Amino acid sequence: MSKVRIVAESLKNMPWEDKPEGLDAVIWRSSKNPIINWNPIPVGARAFNSAVVPFEGEFAGVFRIDYKNGRPHLHAGRSEDGLEWEIAHEPIEWLDEKGNDAKPGYAYDPRVVKIEDTYYIQWCTDFHGPTIGLGLTRDFKNFTRLENLFVPYNRNGVLFPRKINGRYVMLNRPSDTGHTPFGDIFLSQSPDLKFWGMHRHVMSKGELGWWEGTKIGGGPAPIETPEGWLLFYHGVSNTCNGFVYSMGAAILDLENPDRVLYRTRDYLLTPEKEYETTGFVPNVVFPCATLHDAETGRIAIYYGAADTYTALAYTQVEELVDYIKYNSQV
Amino acid sequence: MSKVRIVAESLKNMPWEDKPEGLDAVIWRSSKNPIINWNPIPVGARAFNSAVVPFEGEFAGVFRIDYKNGRPHLHAGRSEDGLEWEIAHEPIEWLDEKGNDAKPGYAYDPRVVKIEDTYYIQWCTDFHGPTIGLGLTRDFKNFTRLENLFVPYNRNGVLFPRKINGRYVMLNRPSDTGHTPFGDIFLSQSPDLKFWGMHRHVMSKGELGWWEGTKIGGGPAPIETPEGWLLFYHGVSNTCNGFVYSMGAAILDLENPDRVLYRTRDYLLTPEKEYETTGFVPNVVFPCATLHDAETGRIAIYYGAADTYTALAYTQVEELVDYIKYNSQV
Amino acid sequence: MSKVRIVAESLKNMPWEDKPEGLDAVIWRSSKNPIINWNPIPVGARAFNSAVVPFEGEFAGVFRIDYKNGRPHLHAGRSEDGLEWEIAHEPIEWLDEKGNDAKPGYAYDPRVVKIEDTYYIQWCTDFHGPTIGLGLTRDFKNFTRLENLFVPYNRNGVLFPRKINGRYVMLNRPSDTGHTPFGDIFLSQSPDLKFWGMHRHVMSKGELGWWEGTKIGGGPAPIETPEGWLLFYHGVSNTCNGFVYSMGAAILDLENPDRVLYRTRDYLLTPEKEYETTGFVPNVVFPCATLHDAETGRIAIYYGAADTYTALAYTQVEELVDYIKYNSQV
Amino acid sequence: MSKVRIVAESLKNMPWEDKPEGLDAVIWRSSKNPIINWNPIPVGARAFNSAVVPFEGEFAGVFRIDYKNGRPHLHAGRSEDGLEWEIAHEPIEWLDEKGNDAKPGYAYDPRVVKIEDTYYIQWCTDFHGPTIGLGLTRDFKNFTRLENLFVPYNRNGVLFPRKINGRYVMLNRPSDTGHTPFGDIFLSQSPDLKFWGMHRHVMSKGELGWWEGTKIGGGPAPIETPEGWLLFYHGVSNTCNGFVYSMGAAILDLENPDRVLYRTRDYLLTPEKEYETTGFVPNVVFPCATLHDAETGRIAIYYGAADTYTALAYTQVEELVDYIKYNSQV
Amino acid sequence: MSKVRIVAESLKNMPWEDKPEGLDAVIWRSSKNPIINWNPIPVGARAFNSAVVPFEGEFAGVFRIDYKNGRPHLHAGRSEDGLEWEIAHEPIEWLDEKGNDAKPGYAYDPRVVKIEDTYYIQWCTDFHGPTIGLGLTRDFKNFTRLENLFVPYNRNGVLFPRKINGRYVMLNRPSDTGHTPFGDIFLSQSPDLKFWGMHRHVMSKGELGWWEGTKIGGGPAPIETPEGWLLFYHGVSNTCNGFVYSMGAAILDLENPDRVLYRTRDYLLTPEKEYETTGFVPNVVFPCATLHDAETGRIAIYYGAADTYTALAYTQVEELVDYIKYNSQV
Amino acid sequence: MSKVRIVAESLKNMPWEDKPEGLDAVIWRSSKNPIINWNPIPVGARAFNSAVVPFEGEFAGVFRIDYKNGRPHLHAGRSEDGLEWEIAHEPIEWLDEKGNDAKPGYAYDPRVVKIEDTYYIQWCTDFHGPTIGLGLTRDFKNFTRLENLFVPYNRNGVLFPRKINGRYVMLNRPSDTGHTPFGDIFLSQSPDLKFWGMHRHVMSKGELGWWEGTKIGGGPAPIETPEGWLLFYHGVSNTCNGFVYSMGAAILDLENPDRVLYRTRDYLLTPEKEYETTGFVPNVVFPCATLHDAETGRIAIYYGAADTYTALAYTQVEELVDYIKYNSQV
Repeated sequence: MSKVRIVAESLKNMPWEDKPEGLDAVIWRSSKNPIINWNPIPVGARAFNSAVVPFEGEFAGVFRIDYKNGRPHLHAGRSEDGLEWEIAHEPIEWLDEKGNDAKPGYAYDPRVVKIEDTYYIQWCTDFHGPTIGLGLTRDFKNFTRLENLFVPYNRNGVLFPRKINGRYVMLNRPSDTGHTPFGDIFLSQSPDLKFWGMHRHVMSKGELGWWEGTKIGGGPAPIETPEGWLLFYHGVSNTCNGFVYSMGAAILDLENPDRVLYRTRDYLLTPEKEYETTGFVPNVVFPCATLHDAETGRIAIYYGAADTYTALAYTQVEELVDYIKYNSQV
Repeated sequence: MSKVRIVAESLKNMPWEDKPEGLDAVIWRSSKNPIINWNPIPVGARAFNSAVVPFEGEFAGVFRIDYKNGRPHLHAGRSEDGLEWEIAHEPIEWLDEKGNDAKPGYAYDPRVVKIEDTYYIQWCTDFHGPTIGLGLTRDFKNFTRLENLFVPYNRNGVLFPRKINGRYVMLNRPSDTGHTPFGDIFLSQSPDLKFWGMHRHVMSKGELGWWEGTKIGGGPAPIETPEGWLLFYHGVSNTCNGFVYSMGAAILDLENPDRVLYRTRDYLLTPEKEYETTGFVPNVVFPCATLHDAETGRIAIYYGAADTYTALAYTQVEELVDYIKYNSQV
Repeated sequence: MSKVRIVAESLKNMPWEDKPEGLDAVIWRSSKNPIINWNPIPVGARAFNSAVVPFEGEFAGVFRIDYKNGRPHLHAGRSEDGLEWEIAHEPIEWLDEKGNDAKPGYAYDPRVVKIEDTYYIQWCTDFHGPTIGLGLTRDFKNFTRLENLFVPYNRNGVLFPRKINGRYVMLNRPSDTGHTPFGDIFLSQSPDLKFWGMHRHVMSKGELGWWEGTKIGGGPAPIETPEGWLLFYHGVSNTCNGFVYSMGAAILDLENPDRVLYRTRDYLLTPEKEYETTGFVPNVVFPCATLHDAETGRIAIYYGAADTYTALAYTQVEELVDYIKYNSQV
Repeated sequence: MSKVRIVAESLKNMPWEDKPEGLDAVIWRSSKNPIINWNPIPVGARAFNSAVVPFEGEFAGVFRIDYKNGRPHLHAGRSEDGLEWEIAHEPIEWLDEKGNDAKPGYAYDPRVVKIEDTYYIQWCTDFHGPTIGLGLTRDFKNFTRLENLFVPYNRNGVLFPRKINGRYVMLNRPSDTGHTPFGDIFLSQSPDLKFWGMHRHVMSKGELGWWEGTKIGGGPAPIETPEGWLLFYHGVSNTCNGFVYSMGAAILDLENPDRVLYRTRDYLLTPEKEYETTGFVPNVVFPCATLHDAETGRIAIYYGAADTYTALAYTQVEELVDYIKYNSQV
Repeated sequence: MSKVRIVAESLKNMPWEDKPEGLDAVIWRSSKNPIINWNPIPVGARAFNSAVVPFEGEFAGVFRIDYKNGRPHLHAGRSEDGLEWEIAHEPIEWLDEKGNDAKPGYAYDPRVVKIEDTYYIQWCTDFHGPTIGLGLTRDFKNFTRLENLFVPYNRNGVLFPRKINGRYVMLNRPSDTGHTPFGDIFLSQSPDLKFWGMHRHVMSKGELGWWEGTKIGGGPAPIETPEGWLLFYHGVSNTCNGFVYSMGAAILDLENPDRVLYRTRDYLLTPEKEYETTGFVPNVVFPCATLHDAETGRIAIYYGAADTYTALAYTQVEELVDYIKYNSQV
Repeated sequence: MSKVRIVAESLKNMPWEDKPEGLDAVIWRSSKNPIINWNPIPVGARAFNSAVVPFEGEFAGVFRIDYKNGRPHLHAGRSEDGLEWEIAHEPIEWLDEKGNDAKPGYAYDPRVVKIEDTYYIQWCTDFHGPTIGLGLTRDFKNFTRLENLFVPYNRNGVLFPRKINGRYVMLNRPSDTGHTPFGDIFLSQSPDLKFWGMHRHVMSKGELGWWEGTKIGGGPAPIETPEGWLLFYHGVSNTCNGFVYSMGAAILDLENPDRVLYRTRDYLLTPEKEYETTGFVPNVVFPCATLHDAETGRIAIYYGAADTYTALAYTQVEELVDYIKYNSQV
């Protein structure tokens, strides 16, 4: 096994469970799943597809809360251990750079990434159709909204955790107005997070891999390793009874991240457990965030389950990267 | 809390369970759910979306029975306690007013309402496409079929329990030929239950409330209160893996029932339990009838679950009406 | 040839042209077609699907005018000869029975029928979806709007020119929200033009006749003859490049007009001429009105062509009824 | 009860459980279901819709294995008791008659039938679209691929276990390119398994039986009895939340197998258990093979559940044939 | 220019016009187009997509006649010059090989090919969905129907004019139930015209050539030349306002006709003339038959125009084959 | 009438015809239409949706040429009078800024705008789906391709003829993968033509104006006037037989061009002439370029007709702007 290391800070207090004995898989579920259940806060029916980061020795997060009126909003949350979460009862109050109210009509599927001392939040926002909203916070109390990245229709914006070649880089997935039945991952670049260009195509939906044969979309912010950027993503299969969302992974070139070095031929996690196969949208595993520890190589993957629950799975970077390299199909 | 009262007879022997300790909800499920399970009678695969009324000191009902050949029919039933039901093994034998056979090719989603001494039954019937059938009984043994209300395509006909302004009033939901992806609640009026007109639009599917963003339809016969007509209804959300049916409520003006005074912003009940999320049609909560007691304000709501089971939920009128008024979005 | 007579008044001044020599068809086009061309009035792009009646020794009509903003409205018109029409530049100003403004948001495909001394107008109106609007005039200057017949979705309302069995009778064609891909003709009855019931199915779209294999809809008000009600209607065929609208005819039982006595196996007129095959909606022949003379048996059929032009065709009642009877397929 | 016998060999060691006490059904599930669970072999996520036969005193089978990359392939398997299966980790290596590689790009829903000393395998194969592939083995180690039966699009090829009137006979179900929303069972004949013709229509999807109202397809190879060929098949109902696959049965004329003598009005088995209602494709019961014993009349039906599990149900031929005859609707 | 020759009989009296001066195209239209107009016979609205052959020193043909009831049927026709056609007023009376009535419910798009002394007719027939019907005549008076080639859904069956490798060979185009939005050309083989197999894929719809990007289908029976089989075919482009049918050509290997040697990159004829752009189905050029003269290399191509007219175009074999070879894209 | 002036250079030699006597319209067609007909160059079937500019005392243009293989490409062209065009037989050879080949797989619907001394070309290009390509030329011989503006799916990019507030401004119309059935006009801004942001919504498809009820898209580069930017655009109506493309106009705020000051309630030009109603895509009027003369206020509008022809219409700026202001609906 190679000595792959995560290029990041140490995070000793991240959640962790060792791989169960005898399990023949590179990713394993938390025994505490689902870690967030139905009706997490009074206005909220379901908390899922949620983004967490280390913050002030503990953990902070931005959660997709589907309200009991059916609309999704973003709520901030805090946790000591990454497992039990205290989620704000009120949604994030976005202000624009001039201090004006900038609250979106709806907001879902957030990602959070720290670049230098700032936490950037990307989500699917309403701009005469869904597109990618962008904002920042430094304290998880005050949130500043920036310009939207694109005209509609786009979803699954995922920012890299540092500039590359002097430019911010954002994965994104062009979409349509509804339950998009197609979708590839693209990449866009910006000198200033305000104007975007130099768009590149990164990965197509699967032609050989039917588990991702309908569409794919970036998941958590990519993890830097000497082998390349480790990207978890979701892939969707279209059965006669609806979409099935599974999780895969790829390794992107460090300096040219539109270049895919390796990509899993198989899914890494697919809906098997009752909290994944049953709920508001059955058969969904949707990864949105990781916590990871450079020292041990441990990775905790937060994923939404059935658009209803927040769940957690674990892996170890060396084993995972080896697995991806030896089971790759590019 | 206001002193809202149900304008109806007392019904001491209706089913009831107190609200579970610590539950933060205005409606709660019966601990005995589902009260009717798979294969309730030999020809019948599933009994659900069923209509019950007090009758001769006990309870009578008209049940949607989906046969093992897949077709739905109406069967009469009797119960001492409203929980254990004896359902006829043969479907209702409809005769027209001249005594001729008037059995529909299929029949589903019945409602039963008593006006004066007569029990009127409305259901979705086959008339070169689905429309609203109408009939009556006085003894739950002999059933007389009247003229259909409309040309196709219409469903979810719900009669008010008394004339208003001298006219019978029927809620209805214009539909299409299949799994209708739209739908508002309208109201039609009649001097004689034979000719209908003075149609009015009552409520649109939700624009803000995504839980009811695809279509809505009336549920049990409205309950009269001094605050207005209390209407339970179903609202449908369209996910990438199908429809989710939830339950909401509204209060309509007593004399002008096309005027919506209050309407719940949020669903009141949504599929969370296995008997609601799994079955012939996953993720369905579909209310069709209530029993209620004027003295205590207790309301028992009968609802179909997953097009497979009959289930029961409880609420209390004062608490519910207060909730609706303070959580309304019209 | 039988001695079929039209039961109606004499109308000597109606438009007429004899059948062209050698033509082997029972209906023939006017040599002056199209009688109304593009841009008939300043606001109007196209006048078609229009309804005309004898009035005060001349002719009056209600015209579908598609405005240059794309919306259809109803305009009154007058003509001395039924060929050259003066169409009002302003739309009909509907008032309800209390004198309040009752102008529909859009209005199209009108029919006009005289019952006793009143001219009744039916059209497709906007009521949270298309349904059948109803109004009346006695002078073609003042127009009174009555209650809509139905909740949506319905089109092609066609009133019979007298009560039958003491009730007004209206043909109608249940529809859906868009370019309806199905449709049969039904019939509804009313004691007072306000409340409607006793709905009956009249005719299905064609199973054998592919020219009407997608949908059918009533055309001009039925013409009374001793053989039955003579009904012109449109039938639609669905090609890989869109719908083709043709004209057929049927004879309905005088006292039980839901009983079809005869029905043409073949279309009587189909789009062949450039003004029928080319325009805003190519390949449409859509009959909406007739003028007819009891003495000579002459019938002039007004039809919309390509949703762009008003055109005219002629037939003779004896020849036509014979043709229908000997080429019927019920 | 009649004395219906299976025309086949005795098979004493087939799996069997007696009917549970008090069960009012002609088919009953194995208490050991599902007999094959998630992740049956390292590359395989799910094993289902699988074909088994008696072989050398034990049992052999051809299994549909959906790989973790989402693609289906055929794997051979062996079992001593028909319950615990050892499935090969590598897919079947098809060679054509000249010994060249003839491996299909994907392969699913196999059936296996023995004719004389040869085991013929039919499956859905890729030939510029899905069609029916055909091959043979004598030892379940060497597999020879023959010509495909048809141009696309076809599925559910089911060979009869002996020639009829000197010709091989194959049921098949013409399809389309995707999740076919229609489908009847046809029959094709061949003198040599190479050229096919004399196609006949056997059964339409259900008009009365809504459980099979969308499409039907043949299941296990027909079982010969003096009463006719006993055919298990699947029927599909289309709900607003997807397809539901149930199992029915028919009896076909021995010498003219396109003639349906009897056909169950009702389904015989429908998804009720969690392993049938939940999984990769919820609500699927899909029979593909039987084991049966001429002496006792016992039949074990192997069926795929939820496109995830392999399950087993039992019936007894006399009781079943009687049931079909007395509950038939042709 | 090469010396390409047609391998066929001489046909001096075939229709012919020289290429117009200055025309830069390899195919040119007849100045007499359309040669058959609206209403060719009393029952028939339109005659198009028609198949003609030399017969007894004159010409015989099988015509698609769309009746005034909208249904297509096959009628025989005769002509002295190939331009003016006398078409039978009654449809072809098919008898099966035992002399029983074998008339199809509908029949369209015939091809006729002479093999030895027999004329074989292929058409799209009704067999619980469209498939390819086959029959023969020797005198164009008595017509014998053979077995259908396939189960549904298939169209555009085109037989080669001689056996190849001892087998009859038929091009065909697998389809679906409606206005098929996809389609490639396949080839099937038969020792006896009764049983068919050895199916091969011949040509895909165009990936580079958008004029044929939606579907393709064989046209007239292939013409034998030393360079290979000359095949005219239709290709379809899908615009926002419907399909456009154009004509292309290919050259297939003489002994392995599933091998495409050359194929036109561009269409050879596309709808430009009013009789091609306007009619029952606008924008259709659909070739079904050729007459050709071995001596001069002249080819007359009969094609349907707008599903309304029969039209004629000319080319010369040497020039055409050269053009195809130098403008090929395989 | 106001004294509206075009802010641009004088262009005395532009094409012009005075308004026909008696015409009651603000825009009139050229008597020479169509100015480019079928088969304009050997490889090209149709030239339409074409962009022209004054150049070196004459005129230059970039033309959409649909090849006879069905694919669209861009060709340069020159003209002395703007009416007769000499179009290059080879497509534009795009090189990127480093001089590498940058030819798109397909290219259509170009616009050309001069900013300072450079001609910028925008078109719909292929980037794993349609998006907006951008390039420049100074001599119409050498063409340099810049970065694409967006990830897919976008069309109808229209650059303003000068920077506004220091930024380049581009109208664009987010689309989907096919014949997009929706679409609003947005605006994006860039400091450098490389990175784009500050996206704003400009105009919605019509809610009142049904002629533009399905989608809208920018046309020629906006014309600067003191009243604001004069924008011609296309609007699409969806009939049962396909889309109808008409032309409208709007006036945008000079400094905040996402602010619509006026917008025509009615279309200004709709398909009425045979070259507009008939062709490859019937019923299309699609404006792509103007020539205009500051001195006289004359405007010549080049528009594609029926995706087949290039046509020309005229208007006068004072009359037009007055018309827009007094017939506006914002």
